Amino acid sequence: VASLPEPISRLVAVLSKLPGVGPRSAERIALHLVQNEEGAVRSLAEAILQARQKISECQTCGSLTEQQPCIFCADPRRDHALICVVERAVDILSLEKAGVFHGVYHVLGGKISPLNGVEPEDLRVTELEKRCVDSAVSELIIALPSDVEGDATSYYLNKLFTNRGVKVTRLAHGLPVGSGLESADELTLSRALEGRRQFSS
Amino acid sequence: VASLPEPISRLVAVLSKLPGVGPRSAERIALHLVQNEEGAVRSLAEAILQARQKISECQTCGSLTEQQPCIFCADPRRDHALICVVERAVDILSLEKAGVFHGVYHVLGGKISPLNGVEPEDLRVTELEKRCVDSAVSELIIALPSDVEGDATSYYLNKLFTNRGVKVTRLAHGLPVGSGLESADELTLSRALEGRRQFSS
Repeated sequence: VASLPEPISRLVAVLSKLPGVGPRSAERIALHLVQNEEGAVRSLAEAILQARQKISECQTCGSLTEQQPCIFCADPRRDHALICVVERAVDILSLEKAGVFHGVYHVLGGKISPLNGVEPEDLRVTELEKRCVDSAVSELIIALPSDVEGDATSYYLNKLFTNRGVKVTRLAHGLPVGSGLESADELTLSRALEGRRQFSS
Repeated sequence: VASLPEPISRLVAVLSKLPGVGPRSAERIALHLVQNEEGAVRSLAEAILQARQKISECQTCGSLTEQQPCIFCADPRRDHALICVVERAVDILSLEKAGVFHGVYHVLGGKISPLNGVEPEDLRVTELEKRCVDSAVSELIIALPSDVEGDATSYYLNKLFTNRGVKVTRLAHGLPVGSGLESADELTLSRALEGRRQFSS
């Protein structure tokens, strides 16, 4: 916009690259920031830089961490023989919020996708193999998304690690708890039917 | 969340104070930033600081500007006898995007609101009086929002400046162009009826 001073329009441009921030909300945030008190603006800029500088990937599992190894890998109360394989570091958050998993994690860093030039070598597969050799791993739980690439990656990992004698499982697919049949898509319904279980008596 | 490293949760807290950014999108942005390349993160932090430092209020009209006076007040092609009074600096943007106003602006900085302790002295009213004395002002166009406080402020300004011989007008209220009767609320309809005009022949 011609009427926006240059430092504001530059800020709008940078802000609109953030995930979930469109041009209008970028403009709203930028105009808020330039009119906000200087201290608050400075602490936002510092929080951004600090977070980026202090956070790195855990050298063992690839999660986002301030220290090496991360709080999951360093926690003796967790079951280190049970590794949950996720696509991105962010996925760990969802599992931790649910609070139902007490093993450790392994961030793959992506999915195998020959079309996009992503081969197993580009993912943290070698690191996972090394973990399975170095310590006694009883089970790998694959928690990759169930799209074409996620499925291909899951099958690849299943084959690779089953051949090495590691038990490989996968998160169940089915109806979300609390929602009825009418809101489920066909693929979810077919998976829910496939995975049907007997009532426990 | 217990599982978020402290620098990230601090960043989430600061980000969720931004307008239109809820806790979930703050988390999404924070996780994006800590995993983004360092250069991009640094330029975001710098754009924020630069914008805050370089932008100030125009000493004449109160708009957001990099130089004194602002591009509107400094523009000889604009009609400086025609002043549009807006509540916030942001409102100027909407008018400039429409591109139909060629006068200058005056940012009031708020609305009179005795309940919230906002009196005329807390707004940029004295500055507006000074502008009307210093230079020949032919018309003040009040473009404040039409809520209770906006209306009260409009009437106050109308009385104040009419008494000094300045013509005071107000933006028209009515049906938005392109929308039918069914989408207009009662107040808008009553204003549209009040302000009805003859067809120009």
